[in-house]
Amino acid sequence: MKDIEVVSQPLKQLTAKLADDLRSVDLLIRERMVSQNVPRIPEVTQYLLDAGGKKLRPILTLASANMFDYVGHYHIYLAATVEFIHTATLLHDDVVDGSLQRRGRPTPNLLWDNKSSVLVGDFLFARSFQLMTETNNLRVLELLADTSATIAEGEVLQLTAAQSLTLTEEIYLQIVRGKTAALFSAAAEVGGVIANASELHLEALRNYGDALGIAFQIADDLLDYTDDNPAFGKNIGDDFRDRKMTLPVIKAVAHATENEKAFWVRTIVNGQQQEGDLDEVLRLLKKYDAIEKTRADAQHWSYKACASIECLPECQLRNLLCGLAKYIIDRLS
Amino acid sequence: MKDIEVVSQPLKQLTAKLADDLRSVDLLIRERMVSQNVPRIPEVTQYLLDAGGKKLRPILTLASANMFDYVGHYHIYLAATVEFIHTATLLHDDVVDGSLQRRGRPTPNLLWDNKSSVLVGDFLFARSFQLMTETNNLRVLELLADTSATIAEGEVLQLTAAQSLTLTEEIYLQIVRGKTAALFSAAAEVGGVIANASELHLEALRNYGDALGIAFQIADDLLDYTDDNPAFGKNIGDDFRDRKMTLPVIKAVAHATENEKAFWVRTIVNGQQQEGDLDEVLRLLKKYDAIEKTRADAQHWSYKACASIECLPECQLRNLLCGLAKYIIDRLS
Repeated sequence: MKDIEVVSQPLKQLTAKLADDLRSVDLLIRERMVSQNVPRIPEVTQYLLDAGGKKLRPILTLASANMFDYVGHYHIYLAATVEFIHTATLLHDDVVDGSLQRRGRPTPNLLWDNKSSVLVGDFLFARSFQLMTETNNLRVLELLADTSATIAEGEVLQLTAAQSLTLTEEIYLQIVRGKTAALFSAAAEVGGVIANASELHLEALRNYGDALGIAFQIADDLLDYTDDNPAFGKNIGDDFRDRKMTLPVIKAVAHATENEKAFWVRTIVNGQQQEGDLDEVLRLLKKYDAIEKTRADAQHWSYKACASIECLPECQLRNLLCGLAKYIIDRLS
Repeated sequence: MKDIEVVSQPLKQLTAKLADDLRSVDLLIRERMVSQNVPRIPEVTQYLLDAGGKKLRPILTLASANMFDYVGHYHIYLAATVEFIHTATLLHDDVVDGSLQRRGRPTPNLLWDNKSSVLVGDFLFARSFQLMTETNNLRVLELLADTSATIAEGEVLQLTAAQSLTLTEEIYLQIVRGKTAALFSAAAEVGGVIANASELHLEALRNYGDALGIAFQIADDLLDYTDDNPAFGKNIGDDFRDRKMTLPVIKAVAHATENEKAFWVRTIVNGQQQEGDLDEVLRLLKKYDAIEKTRADAQHWSYKACASIECLPECQLRNLLCGLAKYIIDRLS
């Protein structure tokens, strides 16, 4: 586990090392987001791409494929595939959440409308499906089909369970696995599949992506209570205002007194929030050490991600992936 | 073209002839719509299935496969696949159109919410993708991937072009091919693909489904101006009130005087409708013979569907499919 300490700026290093491949992915995405006669499709897609995400998912695919010395161009197709799936889910998520901002800019559903977000999302799903089919690899297709179902299942679970105080850490984990970790895990694994990695190594990549995704999402949910970033349209307590049962709140609810339970019922279940409620939330999170415990959980999954790939052949990419698992929770300290 | 006249109740006959297969499709759909821990998914899906559509698309797949003496069970998977895709698009369509009724019952977006419709739709798309992947047939996968993209493209095109007076018959046809004919065409073709039909026969099935879908949609759009059916939540002029440029209106707009153009701009482009406008629409459709011309178009595509499969080996199923093409425009007289 020593690697986890020594790699500096792993995301930057990964991006640099995979720069050529990432450029090819970018070109392919731009080529495939085109739709003859329907300009709304590339408009919306381009707008999302311009926001410039970290491209974590394509990086996982490219890193896995390269780690096993893959020769060919299908890893580019698969990296574009996972980015298309990710972009499609962003479009639908923003509609479902009624979000107005993402990465500090208006969401497409605000800029165009919900209808465009739903339908362009469908188009991008279809495009991802075309891209992966071109690899002619049935195992990849099966894996990504299962992943799509898991993602959608996680989203519906979140929708139906998110405002219930009975939401346990177990259900939270199931939601997170669906909405975030499933695609991280698939992104890492398909790179190995296309490169003919062994079953043992595929399992390692799968577990790495799963743990990385969980660590990533827990960190995200934690930052919502610790990190003020109005420039990016994020303010402390956004999830509370959206009445989302995320891990810090789940931990506080689990130990709530009768009075505190009434508070959570009023604010989360019934959505009757008033001035001063967020302060009370922060007090309760502190009282039950929920922030620290959540941070420890994120750390646990980050370590687990790194440990999952210890069995892979030692190489720079492996070390960088391990460093990445540390990096995504570095934001927490 | 004699067959087109003699087959009575072709849909009923097809349903009876394919009864065993249709039961298997139904069982498979019920099995695959289940989602552990996420009851909302089967709830919404079951509700849509209970509405009991005609199952046209699965019937096309089963008929094609059986026509070529397919032995196996993948035609059942593919019939369930096309029904899942259809159900998913219904869910998203109702959200996009803001529809309140379908087949005389409240739409799922009304009964639950838009969020559930978007996400359960995504889940059903993913399920369809899993089902088709299980056939291990790359040609089927490629065909259905392309079809998904065409469907989504057609929907976005409709969204962005539907309220413009410049919408030509050509663009209308493109929209219809996307939103309706593409899935009919794919449903017919995949049955042949799985049964190893020749390229010539596959082309025939593809063209049949394409023409059938177009005839079906034109008939639907025409009925909106001729058929009052409040019991099913359909009233004359619903499409006009939704400001949709469908074929009858396109034909009237094409010949509009300056005054009439102003009327269309006010009612369709600007959406400022008032009492008496629908009467004026009906007058204009009559003035330009738009209803009759649209009916002739539907008839043309119906004949074309039947002619497309003349090259297939003569058999009862072929005759029934030909009869089906006549049947779906019979509603117009």
